[in-house]
Amino acid sequence: MNPVEIIRAKRDGGKLSSEQIKFFIDNYLEGEITDYQMSAFLMAVFFRGMNDDETFALTETMIKSGKVVDLSFINGIKVDKHSTGGVGDKTSLILAPLAAACGIYVPMISGRGLGHTGGTLDKLESIPGFNVNLSIEDYKRVLAKLGVVMIGQTAELAPADKRIYALRDVTATVNNISLITASIMSKKIAEGADAIVFDVKIGSGANLPDEEESKILAKKLVSVSRKFGKKAIAVLTDMSQPLGNNIGNWLEVEECLELLNGVKVDDLSKVNNVLAGAMIYLGGKVKDISEGEKIAQEIIDSGKAFGKFLELVKEQGGYVEYLNAYKKLKRPEFKSEFRALSGGFITKMEAHGFGMAAIDLGCGRKKADDKINFLSGIVLKKKYGDKVLKDDLICEIWSDDIAKNEAGKIRINDAVKIEPEAPPKKELIIDILE
Amino acid sequence: MNPVEIIRAKRDGGKLSSEQIKFFIDNYLEGEITDYQMSAFLMAVFFRGMNDDETFALTETMIKSGKVVDLSFINGIKVDKHSTGGVGDKTSLILAPLAAACGIYVPMISGRGLGHTGGTLDKLESIPGFNVNLSIEDYKRVLAKLGVVMIGQTAELAPADKRIYALRDVTATVNNISLITASIMSKKIAEGADAIVFDVKIGSGANLPDEEESKILAKKLVSVSRKFGKKAIAVLTDMSQPLGNNIGNWLEVEECLELLNGVKVDDLSKVNNVLAGAMIYLGGKVKDISEGEKIAQEIIDSGKAFGKFLELVKEQGGYVEYLNAYKKLKRPEFKSEFRALSGGFITKMEAHGFGMAAIDLGCGRKKADDKINFLSGIVLKKKYGDKVLKDDLICEIWSDDIAKNEAGKIRINDAVKIEPEAPPKKELIIDILE
Repeated sequence: MNPVEIIRAKRDGGKLSSEQIKFFIDNYLEGEITDYQMSAFLMAVFFRGMNDDETFALTETMIKSGKVVDLSFINGIKVDKHSTGGVGDKTSLILAPLAAACGIYVPMISGRGLGHTGGTLDKLESIPGFNVNLSIEDYKRVLAKLGVVMIGQTAELAPADKRIYALRDVTATVNNISLITASIMSKKIAEGADAIVFDVKIGSGANLPDEEESKILAKKLVSVSRKFGKKAIAVLTDMSQPLGNNIGNWLEVEECLELLNGVKVDDLSKVNNVLAGAMIYLGGKVKDISEGEKIAQEIIDSGKAFGKFLELVKEQGGYVEYLNAYKKLKRPEFKSEFRALSGGFITKMEAHGFGMAAIDLGCGRKKADDKINFLSGIVLKKKYGDKVLKDDLICEIWSDDIAKNEAGKIRINDAVKIEPEAPPKKELIIDILE
Repeated sequence: MNPVEIIRAKRDGGKLSSEQIKFFIDNYLEGEITDYQMSAFLMAVFFRGMNDDETFALTETMIKSGKVVDLSFINGIKVDKHSTGGVGDKTSLILAPLAAACGIYVPMISGRGLGHTGGTLDKLESIPGFNVNLSIEDYKRVLAKLGVVMIGQTAELAPADKRIYALRDVTATVNNISLITASIMSKKIAEGADAIVFDVKIGSGANLPDEEESKILAKKLVSVSRKFGKKAIAVLTDMSQPLGNNIGNWLEVEECLELLNGVKVDDLSKVNNVLAGAMIYLGGKVKDISEGEKIAQEIIDSGKAFGKFLELVKEQGGYVEYLNAYKKLKRPEFKSEFRALSGGFITKMEAHGFGMAAIDLGCGRKKADDKINFLSGIVLKKKYGDKVLKDDLICEIWSDDIAKNEAGKIRINDAVKIEPEAPPKKELIIDILE
């Protein structure tokens, strides 16, 4: 086998055998195939795609590049949730302890903020002391003890994905369905989950802006999961506007704490409960997702989910008193307000623009080594479809630098539109693929 | 400007500005942009192409990466010919001295054999002593003295092309019209020609197998030449079967010597004279190509072209007595014959298969550092459309190893087809773009 022949075959729209894919990835890791050949290959895949068999072979090769965690010593179904990423998307922090409080094991390995989207690890780290860098042994221990554990990717799991992902990031080859699928699935299989719920975002704040592409990705995630013998459900959810009211790491933790203490936030509660319901269903505790959804709200209302969250934070080194005192915590130094320039209805509240504004405020990174300001962020007072009068407060903007607030305001001004007529209602749960 | 943004823009079908192209190439040469970013960019260009403005900007940047030879001290029009490459394509050796014998200056920088196609430099080096590695100063001196010079690419001219070409070769990004155009044109402009005749090959032996693509390439070569203020003509010629009767480096020189001494070889003489006619026309010596074509044959018949060829060989260190004694020279040790398996008409004589057979015989390289056997080759006794009886000799196969002859024979057997009905006549000169 010859690397140039394999690149050419994919370039010309051919289907690669699993042997060809394995040859290419394995030789890349061993240094026999160069970065420049891999990047040409990735760009060819970007244009030509991969079918399910090829995606499966790529995923399998990436899994075998590292360890696979054996969780068989835990007697129970292990269910994870993965979101394709959005703005204000904080459901992991709610549904992981929630599902664990139902008796399901939740082994969750998450990522950091990427581009305009936030990351679960950054949110967890806004809780002082919370350690996301557990060893695989500690990961297994915490999961067995509490039924839930939340960590970051380790160097031992799917190292091929780590190297290839870094290359994709600097060669404009990130947004391809097969590459995204293999990247997500290799980590999910390696972490040891038995079943996975995928939250595939659709709309301006999603990583794949095209709705049809997101639907294809959802199907692919489910079909590749099944090929690995895993149960899977994909829920397609709206990401045209931010999810919930708070954007920014600590602000999002606060919103989760409120929800876990019984406050309801229309869109966030709904999306959270459907995803949690799907996890409870895959965990074999109920007969369908909607029964799971009802159970999810009951577990929240009982306080058990909040209790489990506090246990988790404590076990992973977080400062629980900080959480309990969250209502009294200070905000960043500078607060700005964004108010309605005219009366009418909010017909646009573009998630992508709010995500970019959050980066300006210091909630995310422009470069990989940028430092995050955990307290910065945006608090929405109005959402899509709401009626507003001129000068009504639409959102608060918080950061440690007034110039950052001003930069964020410019983004938000572009992201919000007010018109005389009420806009059509948007579906929050667009589809569920079982 | 950001390399990833530029790759993404081209990936998504955008048109790049000349500043973006210059930024990308210049930073690549300076090491700020990596090989893996360049190869992802090249693959994106492979799929999306470049329009004339982009191709012009790419060519210009590659030219400016090195020296441009100033030939203005020579008082006369400098005309070069470039072939996109074929099998048995030896016209450069005939028409370069021929055009010079007409008073035109021919500054020719050629390449080596690539894949199944032969290279002018390898053919010249089959003449003992012939030196293709002249300095730019000697290149200018020989051109001024004789009106013709034939050398290989030097490190000083278009070094960006050299680096990018090497990368294209190992990343399956060779066969793209814009990249081919920029590669050819950057060298042609840097060598100092005022006018260029392009011989764009069409058919199985061409480097671009698709006829429509070859036609687009021809147009692009002419239009980019004009943008650089150069006169240009593209002649589209048939490369479905080998050109002339001899294939292999020294065998092809021999065929040129015969032609220069008045022997006519149907297809080779025609293609040679049309190309030479176009050069003579661009050199301002005649009113159109067909008058140039007539003059070309007259110059050959007068012996002046042969005389100029001997002067050139002598000036560049070649052993002229070897040429004069060519009829008495020995062949390689092993001769095989390929004979008709049945009677009928030759309906296929596929150039690509004969080119691959020639590589098997040692006429070309499988790897960059393979040594060539200059004497090996194939002598065709029949061509496309010829009537044959069973056992008629179709070609002789020569090499230094009988096993090589057998390998070549298998290729030739696949490349030749004999059928009862005469095939349609093929156009040799398919089109001329002025």
